[in-house]
Amino acid sequence: METLLVVAAAETPVYRARFAQAMPDLHVVGTDEGFDPAAVDYVAGWHAAPGLFATLPGLRAVFALGAGVDALLARDDLPASLPLVRLLDAGMAEQMVEYALFGALTWQRRVHDYDLQQRHRLWRKQPPRTRGETAIGVLGLGSLGGAVAGELARFGYPVTGWSRRPREVDGVRCLHGDDGLVQLLGETDVLVNLLPSTPQTRGLLDRHRLGLLRPGAYLVQASRGDQFDHAALVDLIDDGCLGGALLDVFEREPLPTDSPLWTHPRIRITPHVAATTLVEPAVQQIADNIRRLRGGEPLQGVVDRRQDY
Amino acid sequence: METLLVVAAAETPVYRARFAQAMPDLHVVGTDEGFDPAAVDYVAGWHAAPGLFATLPGLRAVFALGAGVDALLARDDLPASLPLVRLLDAGMAEQMVEYALFGALTWQRRVHDYDLQQRHRLWRKQPPRTRGETAIGVLGLGSLGGAVAGELARFGYPVTGWSRRPREVDGVRCLHGDDGLVQLLGETDVLVNLLPSTPQTRGLLDRHRLGLLRPGAYLVQASRGDQFDHAALVDLIDDGCLGGALLDVFEREPLPTDSPLWTHPRIRITPHVAATTLVEPAVQQIADNIRRLRGGEPLQGVVDRRQDY
Repeated sequence: METLLVVAAAETPVYRARFAQAMPDLHVVGTDEGFDPAAVDYVAGWHAAPGLFATLPGLRAVFALGAGVDALLARDDLPASLPLVRLLDAGMAEQMVEYALFGALTWQRRVHDYDLQQRHRLWRKQPPRTRGETAIGVLGLGSLGGAVAGELARFGYPVTGWSRRPREVDGVRCLHGDDGLVQLLGETDVLVNLLPSTPQTRGLLDRHRLGLLRPGAYLVQASRGDQFDHAALVDLIDDGCLGGALLDVFEREPLPTDSPLWTHPRIRITPHVAATTLVEPAVQQIADNIRRLRGGEPLQGVVDRRQDY
Repeated sequence: METLLVVAAAETPVYRARFAQAMPDLHVVGTDEGFDPAAVDYVAGWHAAPGLFATLPGLRAVFALGAGVDALLARDDLPASLPLVRLLDAGMAEQMVEYALFGALTWQRRVHDYDLQQRHRLWRKQPPRTRGETAIGVLGLGSLGGAVAGELARFGYPVTGWSRRPREVDGVRCLHGDDGLVQLLGETDVLVNLLPSTPQTRGLLDRHRLGLLRPGAYLVQASRGDQFDHAALVDLIDDGCLGGALLDVFEREPLPTDSPLWTHPRIRITPHVAATTLVEPAVQQIADNIRRLRGGEPLQGVVDRRQDY
C-alpha cells in the first residue's frame, strides 16, 4: 500500500477521512504521527520542516496544498527530478473572485469614505460612481487571476489584465511586459494583485510603481506579501494619493501586532483567507494525479521550476 | 411651449441642461426660480412644498424622481385624476444589485468578524462559507427587487424572493403571502429588504419577524426606514441572534446624531445612497412620457394608487 504524508497539522484527520473515500487503498499519515520515512511515496502540504524531504528515499511527488509554491521552491531538499505539483483552482478561484469583487465594490461604492463619515456621525452623500467608471487592473492571469479578471469583466467593470508573457482572457484587455505594467497602473482605479511570488515579482509594487496608480486608487492584495512596499502604501494613502487597501497577505504572517497596518482607517486586513484550500477538491486532484502516476500518465499542475510557478 | 417645474433644489440646472438636449421644446424651471404657476404643465421631483400642487391649475402629470412614491402619495393636494408617474429603474437596479451584493459578501466573507478582529490586532482564520451556504432572501420583487434577486442568483447564491402577490423571477424561488414570509425568514442568512413603503409594509420587520431569521443572519435595508424596528435590530445583534446590518434608510433622515446605530460595530450606515437617481436616464424616461401624453398614448410607470405603489 502506498503512503501519503500530510503536512497540514490539525487538518490531517480531515484529509485522511476524505482520502478514505476518494482513494481507499492509500495510507494517509500526518507528520505529527508515527510514520516510516522509507515508506512515504507522496507528500501533501505547505511548510514541511527543513530537510524533511531528504529523509524520504521513496518520495515520488510533492503536492502543494495551494496555488502558490514559493515556500516549496525555496527549499534545498527537493531534487529537481521530483515532480512538484500545485493545485489547479480547487475552489480557490471562486473565493478569489468574491474577495476581489468585495474590494472593487468597496472602492466603487466609497465604503471607506462612508465608514469614516459614520465614525463622525456625518450624513453626507458622496458623488456616485458607476461600474463603467471603475477601472480594474488585475496583475497575474493564471488560473486565479484569469478567473478574477473574467468575472469582474462579466459583472460590468472595464478590466485590464497584465502578465509577464502575453495571455488572452475573454472580455479583458490584456497587456504584458514592463511597458504594459506601467500602462496598466496609470489607468487603474482598483488594482488586484494575484501574481505568484517569484524572484521577478518580489518588490514589484514599490513606491514608484504604486505612485503610478490613478489618484485615490485602491489596492487588493491577495497573492503574497513580499511583492509590495507596505510603508510606501501607508505613506501614499496618508498623502491622499491612494484611497485605501484590502490586504490578505503580508511579509510576516501572522501580521505582527505592532504593524501600523492594523490601525489604519483605510486599510482592511484579513488573515490570509482570501482563498483557502477546500479539502474536497484538493483531495480529488491529488487522488487523480496519483492515479496518473500509477498509470504512467503525465500529471496535471506540475510546476515548471525554470519559471518559478 | 410647455413648462416642467423641477423640485430638486440644487440639481435644477443639471436637469435643465439634460432636457435641453432630450426635449428642446420644453421650458424647465426650478421652484426657487421665478415661474408662473398657471403655466406649469408637469412637475418632476421628490418633496414639493405642502399645497404646491393645488396652486398649479394646468398640471397634467407628476413625475417622481425615484422608485418610491410614498412621500407623494401621502399628500392631500394631488387630485386622484392626475397621473403620478414613478421612474422605472433609471439606473437604480444596477446600483441596488451592487449594494445588495456588497451586503451578501459582507456576511458570506465574515467582514464584520474580521473587522472586529482587526480592532484587536487579532490574526485568526474563521471557517469559510461558500456561496451555496449563503441563503439570500429578497423582500419585494418589483423592478428593483426582481433585478437584485435575479443577479444574486446568477452570481451563485441560493435566492428566495417574496412579494405580497405571486411573482416569478428566473432562477429564484418565489414565495408570497403571510405564510411565505414566515417561511422565507426562517431560511434566510442575508435578508435584502426592497419593499415599497405602504400601509401594509410599515412596521413589517418587527421584533418577532426579525427573530425568525437564521442565527447570525444579516439585514440589508435599502428601501424605506419605516419598515423595521431599529431598537429590536440592535437588541437582536447584541444578543447574538443577528450578525449585523447594512442600513441605507431610516425613519428620520439624516439619521439623528444621537442614534445608537451610528456607533454599533456590526452596523454599517450609508446616507440613503444605495441607489440614487441618475439624471440622464431619468430625463429620458420623463421626456418619453411627455411625448406619450402629447400623442395620447398611455404613460409608462403610472402608480396604481389603490395599490400604493
